[in-house]
Amino acid sequence: MARIFQESRVVAWGECDPAGIIFYPTYYHWMDAAAGSLLARCGWPAQRMRDEHLAMPLVDSQCAFVSSPTFGDTCEVRVSVARLGRSSFGLQYEFFLQGQDKLLARGSESRVWCRYQAGPGSPLRSLPMPAELRAALGEAPPA
Amino acid sequence: MARIFQESRVVAWGECDPAGIIFYPTYYHWMDAAAGSLLARCGWPAQRMRDEHLAMPLVDSQCAFVSSPTFGDTCEVRVSVARLGRSSFGLQYEFFLQGQDKLLARGSESRVWCRYQAGPGSPLRSLPMPAELRAALGEAPPA
Amino acid sequence: MARIFQESRVVAWGECDPAGIIFYPTYYHWMDAAAGSLLARCGWPAQRMRDEHLAMPLVDSQCAFVSSPTFGDTCEVRVSVARLGRSSFGLQYEFFLQGQDKLLARGSESRVWCRYQAGPGSPLRSLPMPAELRAALGEAPPA
Amino acid sequence: MARIFQESRVVAWGECDPAGIIFYPTYYHWMDAAAGSLLARCGWPAQRMRDEHLAMPLVDSQCAFVSSPTFGDTCEVRVSVARLGRSSFGLQYEFFLQGQDKLLARGSESRVWCRYQAGPGSPLRSLPMPAELRAALGEAPPA
Repeated sequence: MARIFQESRVVAWGECDPAGIIFYPTYYHWMDAAAGSLLARCGWPAQRMRDEHLAMPLVDSQCAFVSSPTFGDTCEVRVSVARLGRSSFGLQYEFFLQGQDKLLARGSESRVWCRYQAGPGSPLRSLPMPAELRAALGEAPPA
Repeated sequence: MARIFQESRVVAWGECDPAGIIFYPTYYHWMDAAAGSLLARCGWPAQRMRDEHLAMPLVDSQCAFVSSPTFGDTCEVRVSVARLGRSSFGLQYEFFLQGQDKLLARGSESRVWCRYQAGPGSPLRSLPMPAELRAALGEAPPA
Repeated sequence: MARIFQESRVVAWGECDPAGIIFYPTYYHWMDAAAGSLLARCGWPAQRMRDEHLAMPLVDSQCAFVSSPTFGDTCEVRVSVARLGRSSFGLQYEFFLQGQDKLLARGSESRVWCRYQAGPGSPLRSLPMPAELRAALGEAPPA
Repeated sequence: MARIFQESRVVAWGECDPAGIIFYPTYYHWMDAAAGSLLARCGWPAQRMRDEHLAMPLVDSQCAFVSSPTFGDTCEVRVSVARLGRSSFGLQYEFFLQGQDKLLARGSESRVWCRYQAGPGSPLRSLPMPAELRAALGEAPPA
């Protein structure tokens, strides 16, 4: 399991709580956005997802919080593919302070590759992940 | 212009910033939610909006901040209809600490009554507000 | 392990995503808010938490998504105490469509009872949960 | 009034609503974050704001919505200084689709330069903006 994608985030004032540190659901917002970035990088940008009526709904997500950044801190979101099933896949996330070895949090998401049966907003049905996507997720070199 | 709707909100920990007070975009989240509650009360709940492919996109919004609540505070969101055009309408909002005369903020939204031309997510076209909706917005008694 | 607290939430337009269903981090916002409501009910409202420099930071959180509500739906957030340690405790959450047996999601949070060592925003140190809080969390009757 | 700062944003899935377009409070989140970035660029990064107990609370904010981006779109947030008072200042924001002349929205914020009288979370008192900050806001060259 290799890291295949990385993006950075500056913790915004509004993403922090009265303790002065990141409000924990923020990590899940970042995971979801990084999953979108990863798919774009693999050849399925938002436009294509829309055009082909694709979605990747969540089965579950999880995050353990180790150390908390504060506003103005730049964080690295590192994404790995933890599992590649037929239509489901697991992504693993690690959050670090930029330029440091200090782990902030470690999370994961399980998702399913789906298509809207009758256009956006209609019920979803799972379908096998395309071979190119599987290849991109399994073989993409580090960002 | 009479107040026609009111709902209460408890300021959540995650809606506050490191200054320990409400993060200002929260007021806009509350306005948008109150607009939805108002429409539901007037006979156009979310389900009907969806079924009839209706939406009420924003033209502009504004808010002046007078005094800031902190987490755990219960606030009253009071909605008035400031303007009723053919297809556009203006809503005015006042935010108070519950049970007090202390004004927290005062905001407004301008919206347009629209229908998706080809289903959810497709381009919107404005249309005249239905007579029942106009009546409900103009005549609804205080909540 | 008994359910000890329950509150309801209406899914807002802005809490939904382009698939027309709840955006998943919303559940974590709801869990965090419900934890605050639970503590208030147990005798530690926000004001007291602030005055006594208390906080209950997260160790980890998790959520499994079973069925997705859409905007306008009213959901019940049911909170149970899953574990009561010396200074750490686990909360479990179940989300249901109001008035139905339909499970939407099931989540959990692990938290630690802490005090800011030198005022708000300073480092946190864990401390034993007060006996009254332990009693309230362990014995509180259903809401 | 010259543009003095610019940053880009990719519209996230979770920043869009069921109409498939940006949820309008998102613009206010972006404005607030861009104000923080601007101050950092002018010599007052978050760390310094914290160390010196400074804050820049809002007096009011406003935004007009012209055209709506959808998820995956990259937007440019352009910040100008509209007004420089003794302790208050006005920021103006324009949002464009990256690489296009298409205006998405135009907003503004009025803020006051303040110091916490007794540490973070305590009452704020306005104070004159430092000469270096005034110079940086008035004279900073385009980003």
